[in-house]
Amino acid sequence: MITVVKIGGNIVDNPEALARFVRAFAGIGGKKILIHGGGKEATRLSERLDIPTVMIEGRRVTSRETLDVCTMVYAGLVNKRIVSMLQAEGVNAIGLSGADADIIRATRRPAKPVDYGFVGDIALDGVNSSTLASLLDAGLTPVFCAITHDGSATLLNCNADTIAAAVAIAAARIEPTTLTYCFEQPGVMADITRSDSLIKEITPTLYAALKADGTINKGMIPKLDNAFRAIGAGVEKVVIKHADNLANETGTTLSPDE
Amino acid sequence: MITVVKIGGNIVDNPEALARFVRAFAGIGGKKILIHGGGKEATRLSERLDIPTVMIEGRRVTSRETLDVCTMVYAGLVNKRIVSMLQAEGVNAIGLSGADADIIRATRRPAKPVDYGFVGDIALDGVNSSTLASLLDAGLTPVFCAITHDGSATLLNCNADTIAAAVAIAAARIEPTTLTYCFEQPGVMADITRSDSLIKEITPTLYAALKADGTINKGMIPKLDNAFRAIGAGVEKVVIKHADNLANETGTTLSPDE
Repeated sequence: MITVVKIGGNIVDNPEALARFVRAFAGIGGKKILIHGGGKEATRLSERLDIPTVMIEGRRVTSRETLDVCTMVYAGLVNKRIVSMLQAEGVNAIGLSGADADIIRATRRPAKPVDYGFVGDIALDGVNSSTLASLLDAGLTPVFCAITHDGSATLLNCNADTIAAAVAIAAARIEPTTLTYCFEQPGVMADITRSDSLIKEITPTLYAALKADGTINKGMIPKLDNAFRAIGAGVEKVVIKHADNLANETGTTLSPDE
Repeated sequence: MITVVKIGGNIVDNPEALARFVRAFAGIGGKKILIHGGGKEATRLSERLDIPTVMIEGRRVTSRETLDVCTMVYAGLVNKRIVSMLQAEGVNAIGLSGADADIIRATRRPAKPVDYGFVGDIALDGVNSSTLASLLDAGLTPVFCAITHDGSATLLNCNADTIAAAVAIAAARIEPTTLTYCFEQPGVMADITRSDSLIKEITPTLYAALKADGTINKGMIPKLDNAFRAIGAGVEKVVIKHADNLANETGTTLSPDE
């Protein structure tokens, strides 16, 4: 049994939430893997360095200078901070970019129709599962940031949700795997203004209906698309939940139809 | 046979020299390990961020902000750049701080007589050789920066020469090991103004004499002390040479007496 957990900026940016999360993650038994997003630190550092942050449709355009900032913040500061916190909790964590051990290859996104710069896309089978297996077998807990490479010495900034899905798919080739996306909400909410509107389970059929009636909207769609792709590719279960519920059952479980 | 190579700022800061070095390092057969210093990038980033760089007796005082800068630059930017360059040359590199896989523990330097801040010292037996062995056995080439941790969630800035010596000592417990320090000069020079004054071999006895007569002076002493400690702790040979001579015999070889 392998547990893959992804955390985003809302945890990475909040020292107390991060410390709580690290303790809860340390409590998970068996083999486990963490994927972290970047948070606002890269934007703050860019501001201090007078590097413009350009967003197109909510996505960061990654110039050479922005790539350097993201590499410093994600692969350096945030990754090593989390690794050292996990080590202090007795978890033998090892921080990785996709370039390390060539564990994730990406391809640079084509410059048309929109040139996002040094942004990479990874195939859902783009994670080397034999390398992943040997790290897990050595008793290590891989901690991935969202920086990877193209194999030709170019680093690329990738989407952490997609990396989490691809890592879970590779893990599922080793052992049964669950993927948990930590989220600002208790899970997928039918009505964001009502805390009692948590949808406990979503199948592909229900997902299509919830998209059609607008209950599931823009920001959630890429996340859920990734999640259902992971299920389609062998991941046993995907859960979307608040990090504070890591140890309990509250959350939205995505599962196949039937 | 394990080859451990340390490069410093003069290579890290020079893209052409780094590319040449990476190609030469890729050509080394067998198991190998790279340790890199930081170069001037951390100082330049500190300047752009208006973080004062404080040096006491040539050593950087590491405030919390300076530690963050060093972690970003050494463990993030420089480490991942080198890893991706090695991957492009067919070397299955994996970038590591000492916190990763808990491979190097350091202790924070006492605040008296001089408070250097978040600076760590490592014992020469402070590198986990069984973890190192399992990475090498997996066909990986570890690439270390000079950031490590204390095991209690504090990252520490360490001396890259000392890390290189400690890594070589750990490697020597696995297989016969040579340690090469890449240097701005062809090796240890009897007279820095004369390019034909390379000292080809130094034993502990000769080292004592060269220190006594001032031939080997201040900056070289910690480097050579580290090197002779490594030899005393099982490393077969330490070589000090220019990176451009990595593939040939030009350099200074340190070896035991007799």
